[in-house]
Amino acid sequence: MTQSHGWAAQNVAAPLAPFRFSRRDLHELDVLVDIQFCGVCHSDIHAVRNEWGNAVYPMVPGHEIVGRVKSVGSAVRRFKAGDLVGVGVIVDSCGSCSSCKSGEEQYCEVGGTLTYGVRDRYGDLTQGGYANNIIAPEHFVHAISPKLNPAGVAPLLCAGITTYSPLRHWQVGPNNKVGVVGLGGLGHMALKFAHAFGAHVVQFTTSESKIEDAKRLGADDVVISKDPTAMKKQAASFDFIIDTVSAPHDINPYLEALKRDATYCQVGLPDKPPVIDPGHLLFKRRSWSGSIIGGMAETQQMLDFCAEKNIVADVEVIPIQKINEAFDRVVKADVKYRFVIDMASLDRG
Amino acid sequence: MTQSHGWAAQNVAAPLAPFRFSRRDLHELDVLVDIQFCGVCHSDIHAVRNEWGNAVYPMVPGHEIVGRVKSVGSAVRRFKAGDLVGVGVIVDSCGSCSSCKSGEEQYCEVGGTLTYGVRDRYGDLTQGGYANNIIAPEHFVHAISPKLNPAGVAPLLCAGITTYSPLRHWQVGPNNKVGVVGLGGLGHMALKFAHAFGAHVVQFTTSESKIEDAKRLGADDVVISKDPTAMKKQAASFDFIIDTVSAPHDINPYLEALKRDATYCQVGLPDKPPVIDPGHLLFKRRSWSGSIIGGMAETQQMLDFCAEKNIVADVEVIPIQKINEAFDRVVKADVKYRFVIDMASLDRG
Repeated sequence: MTQSHGWAAQNVAAPLAPFRFSRRDLHELDVLVDIQFCGVCHSDIHAVRNEWGNAVYPMVPGHEIVGRVKSVGSAVRRFKAGDLVGVGVIVDSCGSCSSCKSGEEQYCEVGGTLTYGVRDRYGDLTQGGYANNIIAPEHFVHAISPKLNPAGVAPLLCAGITTYSPLRHWQVGPNNKVGVVGLGGLGHMALKFAHAFGAHVVQFTTSESKIEDAKRLGADDVVISKDPTAMKKQAASFDFIIDTVSAPHDINPYLEALKRDATYCQVGLPDKPPVIDPGHLLFKRRSWSGSIIGGMAETQQMLDFCAEKNIVADVEVIPIQKINEAFDRVVKADVKYRFVIDMASLDRG
Repeated sequence: MTQSHGWAAQNVAAPLAPFRFSRRDLHELDVLVDIQFCGVCHSDIHAVRNEWGNAVYPMVPGHEIVGRVKSVGSAVRRFKAGDLVGVGVIVDSCGSCSSCKSGEEQYCEVGGTLTYGVRDRYGDLTQGGYANNIIAPEHFVHAISPKLNPAGVAPLLCAGITTYSPLRHWQVGPNNKVGVVGLGGLGHMALKFAHAFGAHVVQFTTSESKIEDAKRLGADDVVISKDPTAMKKQAASFDFIIDTVSAPHDINPYLEALKRDATYCQVGLPDKPPVIDPGHLLFKRRSWSGSIIGGMAETQQMLDFCAEKNIVADVEVIPIQKINEAFDRVVKADVKYRFVIDMASLDRG
């Protein structure tokens, strides 16, 4: 067995606290990674607090992982000890369904194996990246350029790919007008990517205080979404809108902002389903859709694109000892724009 | 002025009754059509009963019109007196917006002119096809093959194009599994078209009594949608589903029947918005969309396709004197599958 230590929740009510556990021995295609940084995703909080009703404890959360390869299984070809790598939201999939075969492992028809909180193919409970190390099959490990700040890279493994993938899937590019709803961990990455793809990018936000930051991050324009007059001015003008907000909100005014045949893509998952008037879809043949993370090859493409364009997340680096406080601040959206845990802190105090 | 007579509602509470009115003199691009048949669309009832809240009276409904050209304006080139032609849901559009320029007049950004119940560009109240004649610009008139039964052609102008257009837009063809929700005026046309396009077609219905008819109309399979086990068997297997039902109904189980990246297209417009769980979209990148009628060139393509494949609607021909009774039967879904008024009856009784 591989000895590991990190911070875990022991039950739904407990704060995260230090925890020792073991991971499997390396199989021939496995990579053992010593973790340097792990991003703090809002879904870590949902999972730990059992807000999706399927929590299994003890739970070490974390799926925005950057570290260095410690050792590799005998059949691993892409990586060697010392390489800088990343691990994201899934660490396995069936490999043989039509989604897996077409490089869309995130839509594996058997169900991909989440990086933490589920049973893997060996029957082990997966444990995430708020820890000193992790093991994942080579196929679910990504090469990271040393040119980038590794703390800023960590959130690319979830917040990054979750926004990059739909922007690519719906072929956002120059001559497109693209909207980003919400300016948080996901939203700020959507802004950076849509801008990098050459689109005219409009940030929708409820908060005037975010105007300046949105422009710094790549917005060509900012619309205050609670102003009905400002919203009406945007009618039928967008080629694509990506909605990164998980809190319940009215999406009807945004649908009206889409051109004929354009798509509204939800990447946040509100607990309460939005009620939308299907007339907004019919009368302009618009689509309402959604997307989750991205495929493994696509995740590597994104990381390479980020190295080329010097794109990373805006992060606030914290020691693991601040994690429970950070959770509370994430819930209050009090972070610009992602907490990232420096795992060097694990062995302190 | 052109003298016309038909059956109109004089107010929201009145049954349809005989009515004399006038239409404009022919402009140079206008076609005057002597009406032979007019289909009875459920939206005629919504409009006459002011169920959309925008009724203007007196109202002569009807937008599934087949007849013979009586005379043409000086600049008309495509038609001459005696030609068999059709007129559908719109009789004008701006002609210069991007939708009109790309042959999608139904999505005209200024707003297409409905065949009845609205003010046209001359300020006249449009009056529909429950009448002896109608005038429409050449661009909104379609050639009809004399090979087809003209009574069965009439519903193609609305029910036909409303289902043909999305099936073409989403490129339904051989090797596709396609679902049709609802078996009424629209549903039975969707079945015929999807079958003619070579798809494997599955009819969803709440009613076991419709199984035999669905198979006769082109269904390869029929699923009773109120049977949760039968619905679950269809999980993630459809390339496209077209929903023709206007009554409120739960679409979540149908969304789960779609493959990854597949589209659910609504062509019926329920008064009460369906509440859908966005998870059904996100976790397979499915889309929920909608569509209205079709463009003018596409309507002609459909009519030509129908002539080639010998496709018409299944109709029950009635005299105009039975129209109020027919309305009540349409509301009870007691028609297989479309009432069509024989306008020769206008001058009787």
